Amino acid sequence: MTPVYLDNNATTRVADEVLEAMLPYFTEFYGNPSSMHTFGGQVASQIQKARQQVASLLGAASSDEILFTSCGTESDAAAVHAALRAFPERKHLITSTVEHPAIKALFEKLGKEGFRITTIPVDDRGRLNMDLLEKSLDEDTAIVSMMWANNETGTLFPVEAIGKLCREKGILFHTDAVQAVGKIPMDLKTMPIDLLSLSGHKLHAPKGVGALYIRKGTPFTPFIVGGHQEHGRRAGTENVASIIGLGRACLLAEEKMAEENTRVRAMRDRLEKELLSRIPKCFVNGDLDARLPNTCSISFEYIEGEAILLMMNQYGICASSGSACTSGSLEPSHVLRAMGVPHTAAHGTIRFSLSIYNTEAEMDAVIEKLPPIVKRLREMSPFWSEA
Amino acid sequence: MTPVYLDNNATTRVADEVLEAMLPYFTEFYGNPSSMHTFGGQVASQIQKARQQVASLLGAASSDEILFTSCGTESDAAAVHAALRAFPERKHLITSTVEHPAIKALFEKLGKEGFRITTIPVDDRGRLNMDLLEKSLDEDTAIVSMMWANNETGTLFPVEAIGKLCREKGILFHTDAVQAVGKIPMDLKTMPIDLLSLSGHKLHAPKGVGALYIRKGTPFTPFIVGGHQEHGRRAGTENVASIIGLGRACLLAEEKMAEENTRVRAMRDRLEKELLSRIPKCFVNGDLDARLPNTCSISFEYIEGEAILLMMNQYGICASSGSACTSGSLEPSHVLRAMGVPHTAAHGTIRFSLSIYNTEAEMDAVIEKLPPIVKRLREMSPFWSEA
Repeated sequence: MTPVYLDNNATTRVADEVLEAMLPYFTEFYGNPSSMHTFGGQVASQIQKARQQVASLLGAASSDEILFTSCGTESDAAAVHAALRAFPERKHLITSTVEHPAIKALFEKLGKEGFRITTIPVDDRGRLNMDLLEKSLDEDTAIVSMMWANNETGTLFPVEAIGKLCREKGILFHTDAVQAVGKIPMDLKTMPIDLLSLSGHKLHAPKGVGALYIRKGTPFTPFIVGGHQEHGRRAGTENVASIIGLGRACLLAEEKMAEENTRVRAMRDRLEKELLSRIPKCFVNGDLDARLPNTCSISFEYIEGEAILLMMNQYGICASSGSACTSGSLEPSHVLRAMGVPHTAAHGTIRFSLSIYNTEAEMDAVIEKLPPIVKRLREMSPFWSEA
Repeated sequence: MTPVYLDNNATTRVADEVLEAMLPYFTEFYGNPSSMHTFGGQVASQIQKARQQVASLLGAASSDEILFTSCGTESDAAAVHAALRAFPERKHLITSTVEHPAIKALFEKLGKEGFRITTIPVDDRGRLNMDLLEKSLDEDTAIVSMMWANNETGTLFPVEAIGKLCREKGILFHTDAVQAVGKIPMDLKTMPIDLLSLSGHKLHAPKGVGALYIRKGTPFTPFIVGGHQEHGRRAGTENVASIIGLGRACLLAEEKMAEENTRVRAMRDRLEKELLSRIPKCFVNGDLDARLPNTCSISFEYIEGEAILLMMNQYGICASSGSACTSGSLEPSHVLRAMGVPHTAAHGTIRFSLSIYNTEAEMDAVIEKLPPIVKRLREMSPFWSEA
């Protein structure tokens, strides 16, 4: 059964163009880019090309601002590590209540190690409390880390405004942009962002490769030390094929950015509108005025998201009940809790996340299959009969 | 020009079987193994299969002892990080003078942070001073990290004896086995090794994937925190295709282990013998009684290794003047300096590292081409004419 894959915020299909670009680097041009011989050395220029492709998608001033890593989580860790090394006397860190586990768990760990952590709340639409953020910035703050786009709801934080506040106070600003990169236009040349994380597998590159944007002049100490790779900023033999794939995926994202924001957005909007009109007692989560074009988080009251997923799975429809990185937990999503979504609705939340590979026919399949699934589950639910 | 690739300690060609095993996981089974739906979940079982394949090659007691990482360097960092967290009161670390930069630079960094570092020397054959090691172990020692096989000379450290000493004192023993895994038999079930690093791209898996063996019961704190992946021991979406490739490469290595230790060893020995007999004033580095079957380090006195490499490069012969991870430096290799190789010879050292893909005809090419190269370079060398 070909899946109706609507879980692109969890991971994406590698694009054919991307795989094609990667293939020669496994068995043909397999040399080590650090080698003296031409066979290895010729690979280094391809890594440089990929670096330029990533820089171009981000609107970075220079490809030197791009550091390749193994994933978004490592990029996040490297960014925060660098800030703590740059300002060893500062013991205050600021983040939000709705971050991805890569930042959330890291800050919780640093909190246990003695850092003072301020976690800025969001409102019921997932919008950041900017007043509280502004008041929280102080001379002891080493870094502010705020995601660009929320992985569960698609809500966009006003990273330009956040960065501006940080810059006025001389505080480093990092954004986990793993869900935003490739989906919305960026121009880091003109934006007050010091550090930005991205992950290949969220934009049709393979899993196991990411990047960290480090604005020129930002103090940086390597998180992984050893060899001289990445200009001494990240040791370890370069993940050549995947880096080349990430570069190609960034080029593809540039080419498809308009489609993402027109066709994909329209599909998402239709899916959302049809589900809301056909299913009672459900609502969309997030900031409807500032949201990724591909993401739709809907809460179906009085039933369990996992049960919905399992029943959709029988039709090959793939979606998520929250972040894939927190699955296995019985607790409802910390993002929805932070937004004050009631337990009876948070438990029944489904995230649909689209990509350029989705079709209107796939939306039709969900629009046809999901309403009877919700109806059947509610008929079995003791909470629904009481509602 | 098809290269005569004799730089397999720098990196290897991805095996056809490995690439074939990986391919479906880019564009067909591209789901996230953490996902609830079958499409993602089915991938998780393939990761588990790869874990068993890695465990089998190492002779580990259980696949639960295998943690996937992004590279050997990350594995090393994770191992040392875990030891420091397990014994926060211990401030003494022990390593050797001939480690790979992944450990060397990490220990130098920790030294600057206030840890007491003892670096055990080697003799002129690269053999570890075991007496000094034994005397250096004390109650303040958090970890001993000693490579299994040297990347430049192939010299094997007596890891079983080192591990025994550590175990008697209750000290964790980590070995960077990046060059040893797949080339020599291992049975970790019976060996006193607590932590072991390996890297995929040294054994015909792709670059950008590695593993850390963590003996059951060894205290472990994650180096990269965030999502729950790898049973909470390494956050970040799994590098699915490369992990599956690493598993397949381990199976291949098990199958080819005998060939590595017979045919490859015999090719290496013939290459070495012929070069030594045809070229005056050259010698082999390392412990000839305990050495990897594929590695040959030869010092050609009074000339520059880089010049040899460039001239061999014209014939498509790929080798190395030391570790690829330290290239670009004008200093001779720290490994050869630690062994007391004179500067006039250390500068002229070439490492040939073979694999199962090499042929006798390729050895013939080197045996034919290299003697006149050395002769010509020496004729141009002021040091040679004085010698």
